[in-house]
Amino acid sequence: MLTFTITTSRATEVLDLTDQVQAALAELGATAGAALISVAHCTCALYLNENESGLREDTLTALSFMGRLQHWRHDVIDDNASAHLAATLLGSSVLVPVRGGRLQLGTWQRVLLAELDGPRPRQVTVAVLAEA
Amino acid sequence: MLTFTITTSRATEVLDLTDQVQAALAELGATAGAALISVAHCTCALYLNENESGLREDTLTALSFMGRLQHWRHDVIDDNASAHLAATLLGSSVLVPVRGGRLQLGTWQRVLLAELDGPRPRQVTVAVLAEA
Amino acid sequence: MLTFTITTSRATEVLDLTDQVQAALAELGATAGAALISVAHCTCALYLNENESGLREDTLTALSFMGRLQHWRHDVIDDNASAHLAATLLGSSVLVPVRGGRLQLGTWQRVLLAELDGPRPRQVTVAVLAEA
Repeated sequence: MLTFTITTSRATEVLDLTDQVQAALAELGATAGAALISVAHCTCALYLNENESGLREDTLTALSFMGRLQHWRHDVIDDNASAHLAATLLGSSVLVPVRGGRLQLGTWQRVLLAELDGPRPRQVTVAVLAEA
Repeated sequence: MLTFTITTSRATEVLDLTDQVQAALAELGATAGAALISVAHCTCALYLNENESGLREDTLTALSFMGRLQHWRHDVIDDNASAHLAATLLGSSVLVPVRGGRLQLGTWQRVLLAELDGPRPRQVTVAVLAEA
Repeated sequence: MLTFTITTSRATEVLDLTDQVQAALAELGATAGAALISVAHCTCALYLNENESGLREDTLTALSFMGRLQHWRHDVIDDNASAHLAATLLGSSVLVPVRGGRLQLGTWQRVLLAELDGPRPRQVTVAVLAEA
C-alpha cells in the first residue's frame, strides 16, 4: 500500500483523485483484486460519482443542509460539526474492483474526495486487496 | 470476479440481489473471505438492510427528500441530480464476510439495489477477496 | 475472522469499538492488509469518526431528523423505520488499512458503532483481508 498527499485549496470542494489512484495502482504493480482508497481524516470523505461541476457543487450543498438545521454540540469545542457529520454520511473509503491493472469504474464514475473543512493537506492511502 | 446484469423496471425501486450474489459465489467457487458487490453506475446504489415492502418504499421516500429541497445545478445538464445525490449517500458497493461459501448476513439482512433513475440495465460485479 | 458481542445499553448511543477491534487483530495474528469490521444487523451501523461526546450526540440527532419528517410505512409493521433508514445511510461496515498489526487510523479517527434501536446484543465481525 502507499499514501499520497492532496492539498486542498478551499473550505469545501470536491476533487477528482482518479488519475492519482490509477497511478498508484501502476506504482504498486497490482493487476487484479480490489483497490481500497481511504482517508485517515474525520472532516473529508471519499465517494464514487460523476465529476460534473454543477453536481460537485450540488453534493456540497446537499451535505451543508445539515449545518443549517440547528446548533450542534460539537461546535462549542471545534466549529466544524457539520463537516464531521457530512464525512460520516459519505464515508472515509471506497473499494473498486481492479482488472488488468485498471480500476473497473463505470463510464461516468470517478473517485472523488469531498473536502468539508479545508483547506488542508489530506493523506490518501491506496491498498490493493487480493482475490480469493 | 464476475459481472451480471439486472434490468430494472421502474424510475425508482429497490431490488433484492441476495440470491444472485449467492449464486455468483457458487460460480466463483469461493468459500472464505469477503464478497465485494459493486455497481459501476452513478444513479443506482447498493446497501444492506431488510427487504420489507414498506421499508423499501420508505428508503426511496427518505432519499427523494433531497430532490424537493431546491433546484440543483446538475439538473440543467441532465435532470437527475437527486438520483446522483442519493446514490452518493448510499454508496456503490457493499462488502460482506463469507464463510463456508455463504454470505454471512444477519437474519434480516439482504443485499439490496436501489434504482434511482431507471428503468435501465445495471451491471453488478461480484469479487471475493481473500483473508490474510 | 472472528465475531464478538457488544451489548448496548440505550435506545440510541454511539460506542467506540477501536480497542476491541485492535485486540481482534492481535488474536487473528494479522499484520498487513485491511480490516473489515461489520455488523450483521439492520438497525445499527458502523462508521469512522472522532469520539467526542458532543459529536456522538450530534450524529444521533442528525440521523433522527428523518424520523421526524413523516410517518413511515414500515412503522405499521415494526415501529423502528427511522432506525433502519439511519443504518442504511451510515452503512454496516468499515474497511481500514492495517500495517504492522495496527489499524491505520488518523489521529482522531475511531471505529464507532451507532446503536439506533437498542438496547440489544450486537454481533461484530472482524476479518483481515490480504494485500495483492
